[in-house]
Amino acid sequence: MNIGIVIYIIGWILEFEAAFLLLPALTGLVYREPQAAVIYFATAICCFLLGFLLKRKHPSKKDLSTREGFTCVALGWTIMSLFGAVPFVLTGEIPHYVDAVFETISGFTTTGASILTDVETLTHASLFWRSFTHWIGGMGVFVFMMAVLPLMGGSAMNLMRAESPGPSVEKLVPKVRNTAKILYQLYFGITAAGILSLLLCGMPLFDSLLTTFGAVGTGGFGFKNDGMASYSPLIQNVTTLLMILSGINYTVYFLLLRRHFKEVLTMEELRWYLLIILAGAGLIIIDIRGLYPSLEETVRHAFFQVGSIITTTGYSTTDFNAWPQLSKTILLVLMFIGACAGSTAGGIKVSRIIILCKAIRKELSMIIHPRMVKKIRMDGRVISHETMRSTNVFISVYFVIFFLSLLLVALDEFDFTTNFSAVAATLNNIGPGLELVGPTQNFSLYSPFAKCVLIFDMLAGRLELFPVLVVLMPSCWKKY
Amino acid sequence: MNIGIVIYIIGWILEFEAAFLLLPALTGLVYREPQAAVIYFATAICCFLLGFLLKRKHPSKKDLSTREGFTCVALGWTIMSLFGAVPFVLTGEIPHYVDAVFETISGFTTTGASILTDVETLTHASLFWRSFTHWIGGMGVFVFMMAVLPLMGGSAMNLMRAESPGPSVEKLVPKVRNTAKILYQLYFGITAAGILSLLLCGMPLFDSLLTTFGAVGTGGFGFKNDGMASYSPLIQNVTTLLMILSGINYTVYFLLLRRHFKEVLTMEELRWYLLIILAGAGLIIIDIRGLYPSLEETVRHAFFQVGSIITTTGYSTTDFNAWPQLSKTILLVLMFIGACAGSTAGGIKVSRIIILCKAIRKELSMIIHPRMVKKIRMDGRVISHETMRSTNVFISVYFVIFFLSLLLVALDEFDFTTNFSAVAATLNNIGPGLELVGPTQNFSLYSPFAKCVLIFDMLAGRLELFPVLVVLMPSCWKKY
Repeated sequence: MNIGIVIYIIGWILEFEAAFLLLPALTGLVYREPQAAVIYFATAICCFLLGFLLKRKHPSKKDLSTREGFTCVALGWTIMSLFGAVPFVLTGEIPHYVDAVFETISGFTTTGASILTDVETLTHASLFWRSFTHWIGGMGVFVFMMAVLPLMGGSAMNLMRAESPGPSVEKLVPKVRNTAKILYQLYFGITAAGILSLLLCGMPLFDSLLTTFGAVGTGGFGFKNDGMASYSPLIQNVTTLLMILSGINYTVYFLLLRRHFKEVLTMEELRWYLLIILAGAGLIIIDIRGLYPSLEETVRHAFFQVGSIITTTGYSTTDFNAWPQLSKTILLVLMFIGACAGSTAGGIKVSRIIILCKAIRKELSMIIHPRMVKKIRMDGRVISHETMRSTNVFISVYFVIFFLSLLLVALDEFDFTTNFSAVAATLNNIGPGLELVGPTQNFSLYSPFAKCVLIFDMLAGRLELFPVLVVLMPSCWKKY
Repeated sequence: MNIGIVIYIIGWILEFEAAFLLLPALTGLVYREPQAAVIYFATAICCFLLGFLLKRKHPSKKDLSTREGFTCVALGWTIMSLFGAVPFVLTGEIPHYVDAVFETISGFTTTGASILTDVETLTHASLFWRSFTHWIGGMGVFVFMMAVLPLMGGSAMNLMRAESPGPSVEKLVPKVRNTAKILYQLYFGITAAGILSLLLCGMPLFDSLLTTFGAVGTGGFGFKNDGMASYSPLIQNVTTLLMILSGINYTVYFLLLRRHFKEVLTMEELRWYLLIILAGAGLIIIDIRGLYPSLEETVRHAFFQVGSIITTTGYSTTDFNAWPQLSKTILLVLMFIGACAGSTAGGIKVSRIIILCKAIRKELSMIIHPRMVKKIRMDGRVISHETMRSTNVFISVYFVIFFLSLLLVALDEFDFTTNFSAVAATLNNIGPGLELVGPTQNFSLYSPFAKCVLIFDMLAGRLELFPVLVVLMPSCWKKY
């Protein structure tokens, strides 16, 4: 392990966080919340100073191996959250530090699970910071750093690999740095489009900003106690669209801008993603018919909730915990599926499910025709043995973490549905679960220990499991 | 597909079933239940005649390819259950045929999930038949056929592969037929030992037979409405031991008889299996302390339930649905783990979990040392690429079937814990689940459609997924 480069990069990350923290400070000034403004500003200064100290010593070697990339990302995200949680405690809005860390990790990992019972009492500064962490975490802070700084050469790929979701990381253009730039340009573009559309629908500016941060980052912190229920049907539908668009692989937008329409139309993951949304919403519409006064309302709520859950955002326009069992089970299954690879969403990802289903079909065919030689392809390209293996291991790790978390959380003795959906909602970065952690409830009931387990799950889910496990292995820290 | 050989073998299977059906007929005679005796005898005759017709035409080619082996086993088990269910309907004890098939499949697959609300009203003949199906299904009817008939040469291995549980099938001795013989000799030995021990503990003969069939076959049909609760502590403890011993790979007993003690002591699967039992029971003892009057009772119930669930038997001495959440979650996790490969138990199997954990460790090591070459070993032997791949695909298929079943069963709109545990209890061939399908309840509440889904799950679980999927593929039925 080349500790030097890890410390140097984490130094830079803290500098970036300092810059990010200036925005809620500014929000505090605008909304005349002097105490909050000062606290956010002071935290920014501390971050900046610590970052400055850490990155003072330039590392002799600037190469990043895979394990150093993974360590940077896992530690970087943890440290950012530990600092990002401080203002919540200092303003007194979240008195316990574990709760504040839960809320911040939930923000950065774009989970949106909250321990707050009454969000409407928060200062504007804190509301902004909560939702803004979604936006930062969505595309990834390391990707942002790569886009802005000419820090490393090709070895930056190892940072991107650790932070970007999906079974394999695609470079849009040959240079990693340019890929990072393009991704953030698209991200800015979609964010701006989202804010504008919501403004045009008559949503106030502050609400538009927060809603867009949560939707585009697929985070989903609510800033009203009733979620998105009190907004107009038009605003709800626009949000649905924004969430579903944010669950699409960013490669699609890149190809669309380059007018490669044919390639986009034949992308298997995109087709399946949209098909699953249609099927899920369709079944739910049939299942909840009669629950709402009009068909329009039924369709709207069904698509909103399906879009919100499959993209792992977690906004809600209605209490889906009161829906019949079939609809709840559909939502629970969608939690595991997640959206497309290369998007800002969590979950297992549609592309992984496709790869696994193709592997199953191949295995069955091989039983029938033992001498057959068949390669697994996706979008016409052969899937490498590496990708197959890591996808398989991903699924194993996923369920091992899932069941271990379920056991540890069960120590709190809440009912099975609550615990199961709490682990599913955090490991897949959704936000709300069912029953006691349903959309009208929150995670404050869990003990600090269970919260720590769920914090680990959120981080493991967002970083796609391996980085957080690698840093826990003693051999990762050995010298070369 | 060589349909000829499939029909011929299924003919033989029906002949065997006819012979098996004579035993409950005899039981009916002994206990003076003339109607039941006649019905079981008549069903036996029908089975015999149909079997005779089917096997009249000797197949020209006696070779069995993998797909024909899988087809024989999947169809054979289904047809056996369809016939085995008939007496229940004719005696009027289970009026609906779907229910009777559910009960019979539950028997043959050693699940032990029942749709009966009052088992004590059953005739002795039917009680015997129910439990005897566990014993037949435990070691496998095709393995029995191979042990008895000099039917096929080496290609019989494809039948054994389809019917025997575990990631890879081990031949104890070079010839398949001799392996089958040794397995059944051991099976008879353990069964005899079980019956004798229970008799010595003061259990009546009929009860000893039924309890042993259920424990040795890891089935677990209760024949008292309160399960095993009313038996003496000694009988309960002997049953615990019998279940745990039945969950061990039969290779262990083979090696013990050949005095290869050292090999047995170093078997990783055996060690982990026993360790998981100790850990599970230990945690439950701590969790349920104070629930029972004495420590002895607490320890007895904990070990009985853990032994019953991990070996996928499903007997119960107490209503574990009333236990605290941690204990219930431990049992639920044990349901998935299952016992050793090469035993009569269901579930994912300890050896598969070990293989997957080793694959995870290897993947993490490869991230840290990308140029490292490392093979995955178990008991000193390298695990083949084939076994790795099929284990990985097994896990994928397993969870795909699990979540699809959960969705279909949710159509009945029962609560999530009930549905989740019902699917877990059938796919892993346990028997009872939690809540509405808990140990004091039964599966009669589900609709015929949901019962069919659970019937499929039981069959898929017992035959380890692939055979039931292969016969569903159209390409399996194409001519060569």
